[in-house]
Amino acid sequence: MNNLGHNYKPVLEHIMRGEVEKKLHGLQVLPVRREIAHEVISLAYGFFTPVSGFMGRDEVDTTLSRMELPDGTLWSIPIVLDVKREEVKRLGLKPGDSVLLEYLGAPLATLDIDEFFSYDLGKMAEMTYGTRDVKHPGVKRTMEYSGDFVAGRINLVNEPVFNEPFSEFWKTPLQHREAFAMKNWKNVVAHQTRNVPHTGHESLMKQAWFAANEDMPVDEIHTGVLVNAIIGEKRTGDYIDEAILLGQDALRKGGYFKDNVHMVTFTLWDMRYAGPREAIFHAILRTNLGCTHHMFGRDHAGVGNFYKPYDAQDMLKAERDKLRIKPVFLRENWYCPVCNEVTNEALCSHESQSQNFSGTLIRSILTDGVKPTKRVMRPEVFDVVMSSAEKYGFGSPFVTNEYLKSRQPVFNLKKMEVFAS
Amino acid sequence: MNNLGHNYKPVLEHIMRGEVEKKLHGLQVLPVRREIAHEVISLAYGFFTPVSGFMGRDEVDTTLSRMELPDGTLWSIPIVLDVKREEVKRLGLKPGDSVLLEYLGAPLATLDIDEFFSYDLGKMAEMTYGTRDVKHPGVKRTMEYSGDFVAGRINLVNEPVFNEPFSEFWKTPLQHREAFAMKNWKNVVAHQTRNVPHTGHESLMKQAWFAANEDMPVDEIHTGVLVNAIIGEKRTGDYIDEAILLGQDALRKGGYFKDNVHMVTFTLWDMRYAGPREAIFHAILRTNLGCTHHMFGRDHAGVGNFYKPYDAQDMLKAERDKLRIKPVFLRENWYCPVCNEVTNEALCSHESQSQNFSGTLIRSILTDGVKPTKRVMRPEVFDVVMSSAEKYGFGSPFVTNEYLKSRQPVFNLKKMEVFAS
Repeated sequence: MNNLGHNYKPVLEHIMRGEVEKKLHGLQVLPVRREIAHEVISLAYGFFTPVSGFMGRDEVDTTLSRMELPDGTLWSIPIVLDVKREEVKRLGLKPGDSVLLEYLGAPLATLDIDEFFSYDLGKMAEMTYGTRDVKHPGVKRTMEYSGDFVAGRINLVNEPVFNEPFSEFWKTPLQHREAFAMKNWKNVVAHQTRNVPHTGHESLMKQAWFAANEDMPVDEIHTGVLVNAIIGEKRTGDYIDEAILLGQDALRKGGYFKDNVHMVTFTLWDMRYAGPREAIFHAILRTNLGCTHHMFGRDHAGVGNFYKPYDAQDMLKAERDKLRIKPVFLRENWYCPVCNEVTNEALCSHESQSQNFSGTLIRSILTDGVKPTKRVMRPEVFDVVMSSAEKYGFGSPFVTNEYLKSRQPVFNLKKMEVFAS
Repeated sequence: MNNLGHNYKPVLEHIMRGEVEKKLHGLQVLPVRREIAHEVISLAYGFFTPVSGFMGRDEVDTTLSRMELPDGTLWSIPIVLDVKREEVKRLGLKPGDSVLLEYLGAPLATLDIDEFFSYDLGKMAEMTYGTRDVKHPGVKRTMEYSGDFVAGRINLVNEPVFNEPFSEFWKTPLQHREAFAMKNWKNVVAHQTRNVPHTGHESLMKQAWFAANEDMPVDEIHTGVLVNAIIGEKRTGDYIDEAILLGQDALRKGGYFKDNVHMVTFTLWDMRYAGPREAIFHAILRTNLGCTHHMFGRDHAGVGNFYKPYDAQDMLKAERDKLRIKPVFLRENWYCPVCNEVTNEALCSHESQSQNFSGTLIRSILTDGVKPTKRVMRPEVFDVVMSSAEKYGFGSPFVTNEYLKSRQPVFNLKKMEVFAS
């Protein structure tokens, strides 16, 4: 069960500032946008192991056609860096060259160029998402690529410095594994989230804890829940990142989970809403963090009506032999006034009296700054969401245009000499 | 995981009344007491597979010294039939003979005698229970054996006819497996009980359901909880058998468990309170019923202070490789007014405010016929316990001397021609 020590291989090379800066002198500079910068960082720290750089044509081909890397390893989502032809031409880049990726005006990483290639975006979208409909946000994202890509290995040269409250929750894959070992966790069940937790979510995590703990003796705690939030592209109406992290953490701080069974961290990743293929990606991601189990509920990583409620679970079942993490399949919880508890349709017969957790309803309550009943949201979670709204959200716990424009950045990059010279 | 089809081999031969009765003519008759009759029935139906008869000296020896049968199969409790020397002599019994075991004035089973042997009762008690202290009820039971034993295979010749409400809950091991298959259960977690359920028990069962369900997809229900009550020797102050079965069943009838995740049955067995060794026995017993998982909580099958709270769990851990069932280890639940739910010390930090479920307190409330708060006992459970008290318990849900003396029997045996002639 315990797969600590799995194929983790950090690709971040030790940064010796002087040498690096010397090496960086003379490299061409390719500025990258936020979404690419996030993937550079995740690639570099090993979140996407065994993928350690932006993919070439063969890797994209097998990812799309067989849902695996050329060597047969399970992989579901293309990780690609699109470029503009004229920029490549202007910089005179060719395979074998290294180029410095720049973000926020600071050096971020070097890319050792293996290959340039073009790819049919419609095909890429359809095979990743099962549709070419640009109403699907993942399709839209794909169709916005230039169609020309550069492939190669990444070396981070400038570690991101996370701003609070993110700094408190940032852990590399190696640091995740070290933290699990410190806590003496043998089993760790991952909870994928982009939400402030309601009591239905909390109950799902507790159910999953019992599932992941099932072969553990009780004399000590050997099982934990890792709440690993996805931090990346935001859309208006989403919970603000700060409220998600602090709200999840409030469950432990409020005592609903003990210190030694619960941890909140995040991964830099833009949700693709790829449903089944994104579920596979999440499974691989959390395997890399050292998790042994992963929760998958209804509509995992789906959007609109593009996937059926349990498509992701079906895909995970089909690929079970290739997974290195145990999926824990969960149903949607409801609150039952007869059972007087959070339960679900697998256990509870009082369906006619059950009260579903409505994200929309909770959202509208929070929008008005009204405290939901304790049945729905822990008061500690509400309090921290509201203080996050004040502190980070321009008064709102939900993403507004103002937040999109003026939020404090998740991380900063140190300015380096190379650019000063 | 699914071990349906495991080494189950029913030892009950098809009863053809005429032939059996012919065969029975001329056999010597050995009357047996209730405790032996119960074991005869359990042996005959395969509850104790692979043990199919009363043990000989070698089997007792290896059971005590190595906790296994002579062939290396895990086994923890001696299953023995003690006899009086003078009776054996009077009946002229010798190895190779068959003898008819009689109970309640009716034929019950034949015993094909393999061996007569004597055994040191103090050694038997100490090695089974870890003590010779006769305050331990198992030791007391052992020390009351005559010290002379007869070993041999059992053939049931007269099937017990269970009285209501027992008839509703009686299933042979084969019928358990058939019922699980009908319900499409692939995983079944056993709950050992001699209790009317409070909400702490209910929550333990739900936690165990999630543990046993952990690798199951959610499109259908493939996991069930089997509440398998132990029906046997009663002591004053115990819950009456009828209240236990009907009270457990009320959880499903009241909708706290759905029809397709919950089943109540019983096994005829006198609790030995052997702690760790009894836990091993329960594991084997429920494997024979077709269960894949078994709940083990604090103080499983212990008594007084003879065992430490998690001795049974430690034994199961030590013998894990030999078990054909997965132990689900659980902590004692508490009710937390802050969490507003049943939780436990592994998850909940509000220990100072937690309210333990006190069997003694619930007992005293029920003794006064007062309805406990819904937090502690479901009203449907309370109602059925109280109606059981009226119908079966001479007004009390707890065993009284009157109940011990005058209760309706659990089962009857048909009178057969052999005794009429």
